[in-house]
Amino acid sequence: MPPTGFEARAEQRATIQRMAHEARVDPALGELLEELQEVEQQHDRESFEASLIRVARRDYEKAVRVPPRLQGELTRAASLGYAAWLQAREQKDYGVMLPHLERNLALRREYVACFEPEGDPYDVVLDDYEPGMKTHEVEPVFQLLKERLVPMIRAVAESEPVDDSCLHGRLPRDAQRRVAMTILERWGFDRLSWALDDTVHPFMSSMSPADIRLTTRFDDDNIHGILSCLHEFGHGLYERQLDPRYTRTPLADGVSAAFHESQSRGWENLVGRRLSTWKFFYPVLQEALPGFADVPLETFHRALNKVQPTYRRVDSDEVTYGLHIILRFELERELLSGALDLRDLPEAFDAKMRDYLGLQPPDIVTGVLQDVHWSDMTFGYFPTYQLGNIISVQIWQRAEAELGDFDEQFERGEFAPLAEWLREHVHRHGRAFEPKDLLQRVTGAGVDAAPYLGYLERKLEELFGAAVA
Amino acid sequence: MPPTGFEARAEQRATIQRMAHEARVDPALGELLEELQEVEQQHDRESFEASLIRVARRDYEKAVRVPPRLQGELTRAASLGYAAWLQAREQKDYGVMLPHLERNLALRREYVACFEPEGDPYDVVLDDYEPGMKTHEVEPVFQLLKERLVPMIRAVAESEPVDDSCLHGRLPRDAQRRVAMTILERWGFDRLSWALDDTVHPFMSSMSPADIRLTTRFDDDNIHGILSCLHEFGHGLYERQLDPRYTRTPLADGVSAAFHESQSRGWENLVGRRLSTWKFFYPVLQEALPGFADVPLETFHRALNKVQPTYRRVDSDEVTYGLHIILRFELERELLSGALDLRDLPEAFDAKMRDYLGLQPPDIVTGVLQDVHWSDMTFGYFPTYQLGNIISVQIWQRAEAELGDFDEQFERGEFAPLAEWLREHVHRHGRAFEPKDLLQRVTGAGVDAAPYLGYLERKLEELFGAAVA
Repeated sequence: MPPTGFEARAEQRATIQRMAHEARVDPALGELLEELQEVEQQHDRESFEASLIRVARRDYEKAVRVPPRLQGELTRAASLGYAAWLQAREQKDYGVMLPHLERNLALRREYVACFEPEGDPYDVVLDDYEPGMKTHEVEPVFQLLKERLVPMIRAVAESEPVDDSCLHGRLPRDAQRRVAMTILERWGFDRLSWALDDTVHPFMSSMSPADIRLTTRFDDDNIHGILSCLHEFGHGLYERQLDPRYTRTPLADGVSAAFHESQSRGWENLVGRRLSTWKFFYPVLQEALPGFADVPLETFHRALNKVQPTYRRVDSDEVTYGLHIILRFELERELLSGALDLRDLPEAFDAKMRDYLGLQPPDIVTGVLQDVHWSDMTFGYFPTYQLGNIISVQIWQRAEAELGDFDEQFERGEFAPLAEWLREHVHRHGRAFEPKDLLQRVTGAGVDAAPYLGYLERKLEELFGAAVA
Repeated sequence: MPPTGFEARAEQRATIQRMAHEARVDPALGELLEELQEVEQQHDRESFEASLIRVARRDYEKAVRVPPRLQGELTRAASLGYAAWLQAREQKDYGVMLPHLERNLALRREYVACFEPEGDPYDVVLDDYEPGMKTHEVEPVFQLLKERLVPMIRAVAESEPVDDSCLHGRLPRDAQRRVAMTILERWGFDRLSWALDDTVHPFMSSMSPADIRLTTRFDDDNIHGILSCLHEFGHGLYERQLDPRYTRTPLADGVSAAFHESQSRGWENLVGRRLSTWKFFYPVLQEALPGFADVPLETFHRALNKVQPTYRRVDSDEVTYGLHIILRFELERELLSGALDLRDLPEAFDAKMRDYLGLQPPDIVTGVLQDVHWSDMTFGYFPTYQLGNIISVQIWQRAEAELGDFDEQFERGEFAPLAEWLREHVHRHGRAFEPKDLLQRVTGAGVDAAPYLGYLERKLEELFGAAVA
């Protein structure tokens, strides 16, 4: 889009969202759902029919609380906020952004008020991404993480850094793409139903279970492009393995943002950064990228799992990632409640960066303007990233308990049992259950950070020895 | 899109088109237009208000004739026809295509019947692209062209072919892009409101007058990419110069397909293949592409204007182009009326190729499967390509009569007077007038092939001497 296109786009997106919302709140739909109560009761709660009616009703009941006009305004202000964010970054000037943040925050509060929340107002925004999840359930999980991660990271910062120089250098894109395709095809990507294309920002979009599109960006001087392919594959596999009967119904989607992220982070980190996985794929990498010919597998694996605090969330490793999220979760709650004024946000952001990660961002672009998410004051989404990490390990442990030692399987290039297990227990259900019900079915527990913390501690011990973990 | 995505896409596009059509035929819109009759009469016919109401009513009255269900079916069958067309080309098998053509033709006839045509049924499809134009007006124009072009082309085929070898060879894309950008920027492309990106099929799309997007494909072995930029620029300038007051109203579009094509063909051919234009730009081309250093300007200009019958419409030159269109127009009419059976279409296509262009297509892909347009039995669009060529010369002569000798201006790099004249007389009006009214205002005449034929004759005389023309 050329620069002056942003105004028309804001109007067009606002119109489309307003019209879409009018369709969502159509009284005829409400009447239909009323009529269908009987059908719902006649069917088993877990049946396709009952689930479809239940989920459609939930969507309808949430939608009717929000006037279409407000939906249009939110969309318009979001588009203008995005354009301002690009400009503020270019000029390194928070002042450009401030009036847009104020407008978007006012609209976000208006949105929250539509739900007349009795508990924490943050519950409203959280529910948009994590249906049924309450703020008071997230808080203790994040509190525990913070208590454990902050000292872990201090200890890491005092240790000898892992040498990851092998991951940088002349790494031709085409060769990286071949490596990524070899891995993805082994994992279940087929060229009839999947596509992989180039883009600036890696992404997965799915039009139907028969149309899964991944995008990534390969750079000639690092292998992030390969790792983002593995991440987006996890998102794609979820959509690919939805029950085909759900197609074109409200059930045909991931159950929540955290569950979706658990799948992408699972394939990226739990599979994709694992030594046994690379025992199988490293020869492919070495053949495609001759710079790795003399790098021992163990050196490569340690580099892939380097831990070191970074300014930017998207550059962060598995251990420090959680703190980037927690500081955002805390600031979102303060902004929504009014405890923090938007004018004080940059300094509040930096203060938490210093406290949690021991880093002072050198400028506003590396500080509070680093993420696009707040350009429209979208709240409630950041915590799902970290909840996804936590859930990924919970699901993983359950899968391994049922399928046997993954290392033995991965070394032999056997990934199909894991993919099939995920289909059976998670993917095919789509939105049929509430996220917490699904988690209970799969793992027998609620959200629990302990397995995730145990996983990180074992990883740190491997990399730095027992002193750190 | 991965191959198996086509079914979901067909359903999705059908749903969107059905819903969009439901909005177009909303009885509330009809009532509103009824109420506005008084407002329309209170305003001058050429006023913004009266034009807006008149054009919106015309759109509404056409739309209400078509049931939303049929609109959805047409869209679904079109998507499936497109997928079949790709497959038929790959397999060089018309049989793959035939059932889809039959389905689409049946739907097209159902569509035509909605309008209960009293005259030629082809009028209905023509009106979708050329509002108000009748088949019996196109027929004599095309008849005259055929009578004059067929012998011209026979004579050309017997002449020494123009040597266009200078247009082929090592022509790096990046250098071609720089040349194209230099030309476009001189013509009025600015980087705030326009964008030029890469694609497989060149195209112009406009989101608003402040957001004009051109796409093209540069190949390393020919300069078609530059010429398609000039073509798409013509489409873009039309949208760029619409009256900004029309934005987000039914008036904000080109008045007809032929008028739009007259602008793209005008900038591509009448400006872009002209000697005086290249007197100004040739040094830029020579600097960017050193292969042209030793090629005299006149040799380059002759190559750019080569005339030679080709199998494919999209490869054809200015002189032979019209016959590619005329044969399609004739076949469309025969298919719609039932005079020609779809099973006999491939041979009927080849027969006309032999008659009009002296060429027998070597296979079905080069024959009747060469164009995407018929994959959904879209009729009425092809003739507008040639009507656009004809109109472009009519407009051009009028502009030159008012602005003075273009060659003198172009040699000096002055293209702004032409662009401004087009804005004033054509572009800004959008859809406010019927195409034939606009043509009358601009040129004082109806569609007239004589200026176009005169232009071609002068061109042939330049290239081959008086014997041919």
